[in-house]
Amino acid sequence: MSETPSAEEHAVIRANEAFYRTFRERDIESMRALWSMRETVSCTHPGTRTLYGRKAVLASWKALLANPRTPRIIAAETRVSLVSETVALVTCHEGLESGGAALCATNLFVREENGWRLLHHHTSALAPTPARPSVAPGLLN
Amino acid sequence: MSETPSAEEHAVIRANEAFYRTFRERDIESMRALWSMRETVSCTHPGTRTLYGRKAVLASWKALLANPRTPRIIAAETRVSLVSETVALVTCHEGLESGGAALCATNLFVREENGWRLLHHHTSALAPTPARPSVAPGLLN
Repeated sequence: MSETPSAEEHAVIRANEAFYRTFRERDIESMRALWSMRETVSCTHPGTRTLYGRKAVLASWKALLANPRTPRIIAAETRVSLVSETVALVTCHEGLESGGAALCATNLFVREENGWRLLHHHTSALAPTPARPSVAPGLLN
Repeated sequence: MSETPSAEEHAVIRANEAFYRTFRERDIESMRALWSMRETVSCTHPGTRTLYGRKAVLASWKALLANPRTPRIIAAETRVSLVSETVALVTCHEGLESGGAALCATNLFVREENGWRLLHHHTSALAPTPARPSVAPGLLN
């Protein structure tokens, strides 16, 4: 994205912020409204297979939001890229409000009549230490 | 996607297959050509933070393809969704040719002058057992 986000990029950032706020507020009705009405919505929660279709995706969110063990997430390092006039890609870092583990997210938005809506969400946990080629300990001495 | 993929969907599926074939063949030059020329390309390898820009993304692929420990991946359960005329979302299951661990991928393609090119790739490892609400053992007896 450019250093100064355009009005459209700001609108996507606000949609992304609304997604994480709704997640924290455990608001399933707002969550339903944030997702595209297309049947091709999909969602890959951490460590799990991709879910397809509004019914399966929103059922997974209903269960997550009802589970008191579901962590409260804060998005950071948000980047938005307008892929076409009606499609925007957001990537961001997801941190737990309580600290500790962190995740990386891909959020794909589509512009619909009533604004930018989520079409696909994919989140994965970061490994405790960055993945890198291992170095034989002797080489460090 | 519809049960009978359109010609455009077939073209995206072929681009996705080319990505995994290039990955298996350790062909960095073909890998460079598969990615969009846009500077906004991005890539989230399993367990790591997202990389941004052709330079960083392709450097990561050069290192991965040069590493003999990098597994050989076979894509399966590929689904394609034409998000707009020039943007396509592919999700698929990534299996190791040697069996064992499996991953879930999001691949976002853009249609450019010379065909569909990869704009964003996000892969995450599947947890060894499916994530689900825990059930007290006593309830199963």
